[in-house]
Amino acid sequence: MRVLFVGDVFGEAGLRAAAMHLPDLRPNYDLVIVNGENSHKGKGLSKATYRKLREAGADLITLGNHAWDHPEVLELLESEPVIRAFNYPPGTPGKGHWILEAQGERLLVVQVMGQVYMVENLYDPFRTVDALLAEETFDYALLEVHGEATSEKYALGHYFDGRISALLGTHTHVQTADAGFLAKGTAIQCDVGMTGPIHSIIGGEIGSFLGRFLTQRPTRFKAAEGRAMFCATELVLEGGRCTAIRPMRWDEPD
Amino acid sequence: MRVLFVGDVFGEAGLRAAAMHLPDLRPNYDLVIVNGENSHKGKGLSKATYRKLREAGADLITLGNHAWDHPEVLELLESEPVIRAFNYPPGTPGKGHWILEAQGERLLVVQVMGQVYMVENLYDPFRTVDALLAEETFDYALLEVHGEATSEKYALGHYFDGRISALLGTHTHVQTADAGFLAKGTAIQCDVGMTGPIHSIIGGEIGSFLGRFLTQRPTRFKAAEGRAMFCATELVLEGGRCTAIRPMRWDEPD
Amino acid sequence: MRVLFVGDVFGEAGLRAAAMHLPDLRPNYDLVIVNGENSHKGKGLSKATYRKLREAGADLITLGNHAWDHPEVLELLESEPVIRAFNYPPGTPGKGHWILEAQGERLLVVQVMGQVYMVENLYDPFRTVDALLAEETFDYALLEVHGEATSEKYALGHYFDGRISALLGTHTHVQTADAGFLAKGTAIQCDVGMTGPIHSIIGGEIGSFLGRFLTQRPTRFKAAEGRAMFCATELVLEGGRCTAIRPMRWDEPD
Amino acid sequence: MRVLFVGDVFGEAGLRAAAMHLPDLRPNYDLVIVNGENSHKGKGLSKATYRKLREAGADLITLGNHAWDHPEVLELLESEPVIRAFNYPPGTPGKGHWILEAQGERLLVVQVMGQVYMVENLYDPFRTVDALLAEETFDYALLEVHGEATSEKYALGHYFDGRISALLGTHTHVQTADAGFLAKGTAIQCDVGMTGPIHSIIGGEIGSFLGRFLTQRPTRFKAAEGRAMFCATELVLEGGRCTAIRPMRWDEPD
Ligand SMILES: [Fe+2]
Ligand SMILES: [Fe+2]
Ligand SMILES: [Fe+2]
Ligand SMILES: [Fe+2]
Ligand SMILES: [Fe+2]
Ligand SMILES: [Fe+2]
Ligand SMILES: [Fe+2]
Ligand SMILES: [Fe+2]
Repeated sequence: MRVLFVGDVFGEAGLRAAAMHLPDLRPNYDLVIVNGENSHKGKGLSKATYRKLREAGADLITLGNHAWDHPEVLELLESEPVIRAFNYPPGTPGKGHWILEAQGERLLVVQVMGQVYMVENLYDPFRTVDALLAEETFDYALLEVHGEATSEKYALGHYFDGRISALLGTHTHVQTADAGFLAKGTAIQCDVGMTGPIHSIIGGEIGSFLGRFLTQRPTRFKAAEGRAMFCATELVLEGGRCTAIRPMRWDEPD
Repeated sequence: MRVLFVGDVFGEAGLRAAAMHLPDLRPNYDLVIVNGENSHKGKGLSKATYRKLREAGADLITLGNHAWDHPEVLELLESEPVIRAFNYPPGTPGKGHWILEAQGERLLVVQVMGQVYMVENLYDPFRTVDALLAEETFDYALLEVHGEATSEKYALGHYFDGRISALLGTHTHVQTADAGFLAKGTAIQCDVGMTGPIHSIIGGEIGSFLGRFLTQRPTRFKAAEGRAMFCATELVLEGGRCTAIRPMRWDEPD
Repeated sequence: MRVLFVGDVFGEAGLRAAAMHLPDLRPNYDLVIVNGENSHKGKGLSKATYRKLREAGADLITLGNHAWDHPEVLELLESEPVIRAFNYPPGTPGKGHWILEAQGERLLVVQVMGQVYMVENLYDPFRTVDALLAEETFDYALLEVHGEATSEKYALGHYFDGRISALLGTHTHVQTADAGFLAKGTAIQCDVGMTGPIHSIIGGEIGSFLGRFLTQRPTRFKAAEGRAMFCATELVLEGGRCTAIRPMRWDEPD
Repeated sequence: MRVLFVGDVFGEAGLRAAAMHLPDLRPNYDLVIVNGENSHKGKGLSKATYRKLREAGADLITLGNHAWDHPEVLELLESEPVIRAFNYPPGTPGKGHWILEAQGERLLVVQVMGQVYMVENLYDPFRTVDALLAEETFDYALLEVHGEATSEKYALGHYFDGRISALLGTHTHVQTADAGFLAKGTAIQCDVGMTGPIHSIIGGEIGSFLGRFLTQRPTRFKAAEGRAMFCATELVLEGGRCTAIRPMRWDEPD
């Protein structure tokens, strides 16, 4: 099966890029997964942005540290194909994994949040995913690691090497050029990159975000506007493993 | 002028890749700058690794948070073209910037360390570099940002946009796919990537590094061995600005 | 001169304790300094809470990391005896030090914020205060260190030992039992403690604050209510140095 | 039963204070528990320092983030009454809890490490201790929280209020003045304080530790020498709960 994973969709610019570009790509893929944690003005997923991402072609929406920024996410997590990080404590609304089916095969998608440099103190991503892999029945597994540290993403990759089909990172909003395969065949890319405004600081409006660095005082965050980029990664899953991992980037025309 | 910047050279594998590949590339460039903070077994710069990097073609060696890991660096910082981060407190050995000359033009190279997620509490990279740019005479300026957070690297890029020729990130050891230009012409790439062992966790031997994550106890760090990658970025500086930024990666043959 | 320093006044409970207890104490002191960063419902200083603290007897109000939580602070910083941390970047509204006078002598009060474990990246508290001490004319100096780490507070104490009269810590909201003198005569106490609700998590309402730990999701913070404690430290300054440091705690009667 | 808990014993000075003062106190207590994580020159527990603490009167030694600094701890954890934090991942050597018996009653002692501001990413201290309390049979429970943040210590206190007899904090090396009781009867003190050299930065030699702050470069850590303080907290456990909590401090005579 062919799977497209679209990186953190950020605000209006990201939604527009997804709406413009994703429908063209959609027919090439069996499944499309989109990280939507920044779709509502950079902060969270609302019913409106959920619907837009679905209409653009998403089969499953994933979240991240911004999961809880918009209150409507709670309802979406109950009834829609939307997941938050799997390694939240017991009692967390929603689910952290999902089974997608295509061509009679099952793709397990799990998201974990990293522990390094994140303010959240979530559960051990190594052992929690270990347990999940033992419980679930699937043909392919895709682990999304929403995190900051490259070391942690590679540590998870090597730990699950040969046991999951692919590991894709999100959260830094910058596409990495390391897409490849580990020793036992697991595909990996440190970060899929952002689908959002090009002229920005990782999606945020430059003036206000810069102010935070320059003043060290809290600033009101705004999403940037203007031309968008679309960052995604294609995975080909066949014969029990990932056989191709291809990052892509498309820039909105002027 | 044409400048090549080689990302964090890590241990024996990194030195070998530099020695194998850099001499071939050298004739294409006026200047070669190499980040050598991990050249001595992953930790610091020794006289021996300094000499190897220079023999491979480096005109200037930069460091990072691992600057002080090997004691010989103190002597090198006194007498050789080696710089540590510019935003260390007053009284720090060595310099944090350097002027390289080629074709009758002056290239100012400055390294700063980021403040976000780094254990060091260095000085404000915005204002310290502001002051340096006001003092120095140069035709082109290259700012190396040794740091973790993509937001901070882009914040610095936009802040200095139009005032420096290029910003290149280091430290995450993963090459990013974002090389491009900001609105006022400054070239930027979030991370040049590592020159070091492919089969590793950002250069470290997999078993011992994984142990740190799995046990949360201190583990003795070892540099990984095996085939190396060479990550570098080419900058073309002409007519007062950067006109091309081209990341490259070369993998050591089997 | 005799000086009373009142620790972080937190919300309604803290204001009530200050209003009940401080007027009784006031006649014993030449000067009263109050940390008011949490006086407005736990977050910031408003005109109303400023006025209440002044009416209760404060000569000078200090802030902290919560300095900017209430927008009215900007006006107060312009015209009233209110200071924020001294080691904010250039261009920050307000001042970070203040001269109070009593009995014909000048007391320099400076607040710095620590760098360890704080999300803000403020300027080097060692060198910025060094420079201030060299510039200002004073008989006594009181350094308030608003910070988390005990090591940093003691490092600052030993660095300025003999050059400042006293160092008082704030921010952890828990009074420490270490009040004493360093080798060269500077008085020190790691934390003055909070003036706020006893039945709380450092001032915050227990249910909502606990929720943050248990869910690792953002929770809406509320100030706790109920009986308050009043934590303060008395300093006796005479003959050019601090001759007594006496922490005190008073609990609101049932 | 009467229990004495001695705070982080630091290096030679701490061992000397324990050897001088603890034997005098010993007859007043049924049980003596000592945090020994810094007993070997500030770093870890060795066989020699273990033996000294036992000879001075300790029934049980607890550790902390410095647990693994001395390799002999592994053997001690296997065969002696020594515990490390309970919330380490599965597979960690040793145990994180211990049952002590006195007067026919069982005291459960558990240590957890905090998650806030600690570099280690240990398991959820709330749920792991929840599970332990459900499993074990005991008359009294003492929870030692080895951590930095006052908020986390109070959050744990309120969470377990009425279910454990007492919560004692360690790790900051500064005794707090907050010893008291929570609403449902659990005794709490944020930090017991250090048993170690007075003229120091939380136990470390002033010059070298200050150097770390002033240079932001790694410095070789040394334990301070000179007169020691002894910090401990007494708990009276009777009728199913803690009826008294009394911090104490003794300073070594000149
Ligand atoms: Fe994101
Ligand atoms: Fe994120
Ligand atoms: Fe590096
Ligand atoms: Fe680095
Ligand atoms: Fe406060
Ligand atoms: Fe504070
Ligand atoms: Fe300790
Ligand atoms: Fe500790």
